[in-house]
Amino acid sequence: MPVSTIEWEGDFNGSVKIVDQTILPGMLKYISCTDVETVWDAIKKLKVRGAPAIGIAAAMGTFIGIRNIETDSVSEFLNKFEDVISYIGSSRPTAVNLFNALERMKKTANSNENKSVKEIKSILLEEAIKICDEDKASCRSIGTHGAALIKDGMGIITHCNAGGLATADFGTALAPMFTAKEQGKKIHVFVDETRPLLQGARLTAWELMNAEIDATLICDNMAAHVMKNKKVDCVIVGADRIASNGDAANKIGTYGLSILAKEHNIPFYVAAPVSTFDFNIQSGDEIPIEERQPEEVTEGFGMRTAPQGVKVFNPAFDVTPAVNIAAIITEHGIIEKPDREKIKTLID
Amino acid sequence: MPVSTIEWEGDFNGSVKIVDQTILPGMLKYISCTDVETVWDAIKKLKVRGAPAIGIAAAMGTFIGIRNIETDSVSEFLNKFEDVISYIGSSRPTAVNLFNALERMKKTANSNENKSVKEIKSILLEEAIKICDEDKASCRSIGTHGAALIKDGMGIITHCNAGGLATADFGTALAPMFTAKEQGKKIHVFVDETRPLLQGARLTAWELMNAEIDATLICDNMAAHVMKNKKVDCVIVGADRIASNGDAANKIGTYGLSILAKEHNIPFYVAAPVSTFDFNIQSGDEIPIEERQPEEVTEGFGMRTAPQGVKVFNPAFDVTPAVNIAAIITEHGIIEKPDREKIKTLID
Repeated sequence: MPVSTIEWEGDFNGSVKIVDQTILPGMLKYISCTDVETVWDAIKKLKVRGAPAIGIAAAMGTFIGIRNIETDSVSEFLNKFEDVISYIGSSRPTAVNLFNALERMKKTANSNENKSVKEIKSILLEEAIKICDEDKASCRSIGTHGAALIKDGMGIITHCNAGGLATADFGTALAPMFTAKEQGKKIHVFVDETRPLLQGARLTAWELMNAEIDATLICDNMAAHVMKNKKVDCVIVGADRIASNGDAANKIGTYGLSILAKEHNIPFYVAAPVSTFDFNIQSGDEIPIEERQPEEVTEGFGMRTAPQGVKVFNPAFDVTPAVNIAAIITEHGIIEKPDREKIKTLID
Repeated sequence: MPVSTIEWEGDFNGSVKIVDQTILPGMLKYISCTDVETVWDAIKKLKVRGAPAIGIAAAMGTFIGIRNIETDSVSEFLNKFEDVISYIGSSRPTAVNLFNALERMKKTANSNENKSVKEIKSILLEEAIKICDEDKASCRSIGTHGAALIKDGMGIITHCNAGGLATADFGTALAPMFTAKEQGKKIHVFVDETRPLLQGARLTAWELMNAEIDATLICDNMAAHVMKNKKVDCVIVGADRIASNGDAANKIGTYGLSILAKEHNIPFYVAAPVSTFDFNIQSGDEIPIEERQPEEVTEGFGMRTAPQGVKVFNPAFDVTPAVNIAAIITEHGIIEKPDREKIKTLID
C-alpha cells in the first residue's frame, strides 16, 4: 500500500499533513502545514505534487487560510475568502484540479452564505476532507477500470509519477498496475526517470518496488530503444489537465512518448479522474504551460552540470493530442479513442 | 575554435595528451597518457569519447603499448602487438572507429614486416599521428559539406556531443554549425542534455557558447515539445557506427529523436567521417550495443536519485534505421536518403 501522501490531521485547529516528496526516496518525512503560506510553498516547490494531490492541498489550504478570519459579517468573510483563493491559485498554473478544487470551495462557501461565518468555516473544512475522500475512491475505481486493460505478463512504460504520491491514495496511472498486481497478474514496468526533477526515478520506482511490482528504471531518452527491443505492450501516464476534445497536458516528455508509442503500435493510455477535465477550453492549445527555473536543469542534484550562463528552456508540461491517445481511463469508465462527444457522454 | 581534444605530444618517447571530458565544463584539465593502461582507462571511463577521438586514442595507445617491446624478432614483436590491439579493443564495443583504427595500425605493421622492429615502431607512430591529422581534415570537410544544408536563421536540434571534443578538431555534427557560423549565418541550436552522462549539457553547450553560437539547453524529453512549438528546421547528430545499409548507431536517444523529427517533418541528418562505416555488417541489427553500469543513471549527479536496489537498464547507444535519415554528411560529400548502393558509390 502507498503511504498516505496528504491528509487532514486533527479538527478545526488541525493541519494538512504532507509527505515531502522533494527528499524521497532518501528520506520519508512529513510536513504539517498550519498556515496558508506553507501550503502555497509546498505546492510551488513540489513538496506536494501530482494533479489530484495538488487539488486536495489547495482545498485544505483554503480552509487554513480562512479559518482565522475574524469577522461576523459573511460578506466581509467572503471577500477575504476570495483573496485566499487567488493566492493559492497563483502557486502553479497547469494542473486544473487545483482550480477545480478552488472553484468547488468557492461554490460551497457561496451556497452557504445564509449561514454564520463560523458555520461556513466548518462546512469548508468538511468539503476539503470530502475532496480528499472522493479522490481516494476515484483512484480505486480508476484502478479497477484500468486493470481490465492489463493482461498477465504485460510490459508497461510509465512517465513521471502518477502514483499514490500524486493523489490521496492509489494513484492514477499506477492504480491499474496496483490493481492488476492485487488480481495476481504479473507485469513488468519500465519507469522513465523523468528529467529534470526525476519523479520517475525518485517516486515511481520507489512506489512500484514497495508494491513488489517488477520495475526497471530507464532514462527518458531510452524509451524508443526499449519499445523496439523489449516487451512493451502499453504506455500508461497521468494528466494535469485534459481539454474538452481530449488533448491532455501532462509532465514534459509525455507528448514525445505518445509519438514513440504510435511509431511502435503500442497503445497509449491516460489515467485521470474526471476532475482533470477542463470543459472551459476547447483544445490543448489553450492550456497554459508552466516554465520553471533553469537551475532545475543545470544544477538539479547537488552539482553544476552545464556551463555558467547557458540559456535553458524548461517547460514543465507538454500537450499530447487526443489522436495519440488510445483511451482515457477515468473513475467512471474507459473512453476509447477519446473525442469531444464521447468525453461529454461519459462525464455528464 | 575548439580546444585540442587529443594530440601526440613529443617524439618517440612522448605521450597522448587528452582533455579529461568527465570534468568539463567545470574544469579544463589535460591528461598525458604514457602507458597503454592509462589510455584504455581514459577510453573506458569516457575521459576521451566520441567515435573519431576514440579511434585516434586507440591508434596512439597502440603505439604506446608496443614502443617498449624489447625484441629484434619481428614475428615476436607482431605477436605482442596483437595482444595490445586486443586489449585496447576491449575498452568499448560500439564505436567502429576504434576497430577501424586498430585494423589500420595492424595493416601498417603487417605490410612493413620486412623492416626492423625499430623501424616498424616509428612507422606506427607516424601512422597514429596521420590518423589524427586525417580526422582534422575530414572534420573540416564535413563542416563544409554540411554547412550547405544550413540556411541563415535556421533552428537546429543536436544530441550528445559530436563536436570538437568528439574528434581531433572541429567535430562531426557540430562541424556544419561551426562552418555556418564562419560563413556568417545566424543559427539557433537546441542542445539535448543527453542523459545519463550529460554530454550535451556539459560539452556541446560549452563548445557552442565558446564559438558564440546561440544555444539553448533542454532535457532530452523536451525535444518533441520544442519541435512542435519552436523553430526547428533540422536535427544533426553524429554516429558511432554505420552499417552498410545506412542504419546508424549513436548515443542513446538518437533513435527516438529521429522518430520525433519524422513526426514533425523535420529532416534528420547524421554527420560522420567514412571511418564510421562498417561494411562488415549488413544492418543495424548486427551492431553490438554497450550496456553501462546502473550508477550512471542512479547517482550521476553526485547524490543518489533512485531507490537502493532498483533495477536499471542503461544502454549507451541505439540504432536509427536508415529510413529515418534524410542524409548522411561525410567528408566525401552528402548521401541523401542513404541506402546500400548510394553509400557504396560515395565511399568507394
